[in-house]
Amino acid sequence: MLADAVTRDDAAVFKLSEDKAIVVTVDFFAPIVDDPRAFGAIAGANAFSDLYAMGATPLLALNLVAWPRQPDILSLLGETLEGGLAAAKAAGAFVLGGHSIDDKEPKYGMVTVGEVHPERVLTNAGAKPGDALALTKPLGTGILSTALKRDIIAEPEIGYAVEVMAHLNAGAALAMQELGDAVHAATDVTGFGLLGHLSNMLHASGRSARISASQVPLFDGALALAERDAVPGGSKTNLNSVNQVTSWADEVSATNRLLLCDAQTSGGMLISVDSSRASDLVASLERHGTPVAALIGEVCDRREALIEVTA
Amino acid sequence: MLADAVTRDDAAVFKLSEDKAIVVTVDFFAPIVDDPRAFGAIAGANAFSDLYAMGATPLLALNLVAWPRQPDILSLLGETLEGGLAAAKAAGAFVLGGHSIDDKEPKYGMVTVGEVHPERVLTNAGAKPGDALALTKPLGTGILSTALKRDIIAEPEIGYAVEVMAHLNAGAALAMQELGDAVHAATDVTGFGLLGHLSNMLHASGRSARISASQVPLFDGALALAERDAVPGGSKTNLNSVNQVTSWADEVSATNRLLLCDAQTSGGMLISVDSSRASDLVASLERHGTPVAALIGEVCDRREALIEVTA
Repeated sequence: MLADAVTRDDAAVFKLSEDKAIVVTVDFFAPIVDDPRAFGAIAGANAFSDLYAMGATPLLALNLVAWPRQPDILSLLGETLEGGLAAAKAAGAFVLGGHSIDDKEPKYGMVTVGEVHPERVLTNAGAKPGDALALTKPLGTGILSTALKRDIIAEPEIGYAVEVMAHLNAGAALAMQELGDAVHAATDVTGFGLLGHLSNMLHASGRSARISASQVPLFDGALALAERDAVPGGSKTNLNSVNQVTSWADEVSATNRLLLCDAQTSGGMLISVDSSRASDLVASLERHGTPVAALIGEVCDRREALIEVTA
Repeated sequence: MLADAVTRDDAAVFKLSEDKAIVVTVDFFAPIVDDPRAFGAIAGANAFSDLYAMGATPLLALNLVAWPRQPDILSLLGETLEGGLAAAKAAGAFVLGGHSIDDKEPKYGMVTVGEVHPERVLTNAGAKPGDALALTKPLGTGILSTALKRDIIAEPEIGYAVEVMAHLNAGAALAMQELGDAVHAATDVTGFGLLGHLSNMLHASGRSARISASQVPLFDGALALAERDAVPGGSKTNLNSVNQVTSWADEVSATNRLLLCDAQTSGGMLISVDSSRASDLVASLERHGTPVAALIGEVCDRREALIEVTA
């Protein structure tokens, strides 16, 4: 019963029986937008994302709250929880209690639990040479929320990005289910940025990949804000680390490189799919309403550069 | 499949199939002792306590870390995690990853997951008139750790209390299993204090209870420290709330009343057991090495005072 236990990123998979495994994840963070309901919805979507990335169906969630008692801040907690509850409802999961503590700065997130057939756990380890790589959300939320924090932009200007961050990766998960065995590997794009999570996938799979920078969808305005250095520290750290395994075409600008490594909150799914089914995957993603459904590159045999980024 | 979902305290119970339910809990808090390994062990024991209180067998845990990056504090994280890992090992559970964020003040805890047969979930709702009430740890950790925080006492002076807080409630759980159907209700004693959690049990069960103050085990020195007002705010709040449903014998001093409501960290199990099996329970608790095995009162039919405390 306690035989199969593996870890991946923030999620744990535990086999309960021959036909049932549970996936457990936990994530929480400080508000990245001022609107409490939007923050709760983003934190909720983000918390379920690991389940979707592993092919699991959400079952339940517990709230995780660290919050100040000052009345002006405490008054924002109710709407934050409502945002999280709405995300859980949309995911088909119950919110069953949780835990809260006093804290100087507010933080919110969720423990999420899902179930999956042990033989149908998706991992980031199965990418095959020739696979097409698909991405389901644009990049740049780290840069946009940093610009917001520094008052370079106002919240209404990033309304679309807020909507996308609050968008559950449920549609991407349904599309992956439809494609079945043609999906060889998947991961959600979060703190390590697109190329950071891609590099984890390639390490785990023993492959390399080519990414076409011009094919990677970016949020409007993100490049311009990156040029004004509204870039989170984590994104710069990601780029430094990615630089060691990446060969870049000269045409890919320094800010574009940052965007490809920008630390995402509640980012999209990165999917490695059999190339013969790539257009079927795109069609299915579109049918399931993912924010974008972009083919951004391909997997190849392991070579010197883990990642090659072309213009 | 999604049929049975109930919440109790910080724990969620979710029925996966006819013969399997999972229990999920989450808890974390700021250090209450200076020794990082002891803090980790206490946080771990505390996180598994809800599982034991519900009759569940621990399966896995995820670390939950909010920690400053300052080198002098960051250096304490490793030992804290080792303390938590040791608790999980003693509980027979795997620690599978977790989540960490930067924070100004350190906090540590765990998400824990256990399994239980859906028909064997212990609740706090089944206490019956005539039941004996047993307690498995002394009271006073809130007062002792407040005194420590205020430098009224030094950490070595509360060595035994630290040991007791790090003590898993696994032995109490085994004893409850041995007693089977004779155990009518159980709850672990944490933030609401003994009488707070007892009052939840009595509300849920529709009963009243008599507690004999002199039979309730207290940590050495806790009464004297309470007289010097080394009392956490939470314990005072608990007493105010308990006062509304309790009749006190005059002989029970004001400080003793505070002790009976003292907010506990990783407290013991409060067990409502058929009176004909009370001595068997005590023998079983002793055999399984619980810190104490005290019979502290009895359940009776619902009357005006929810709780009567005699000398």
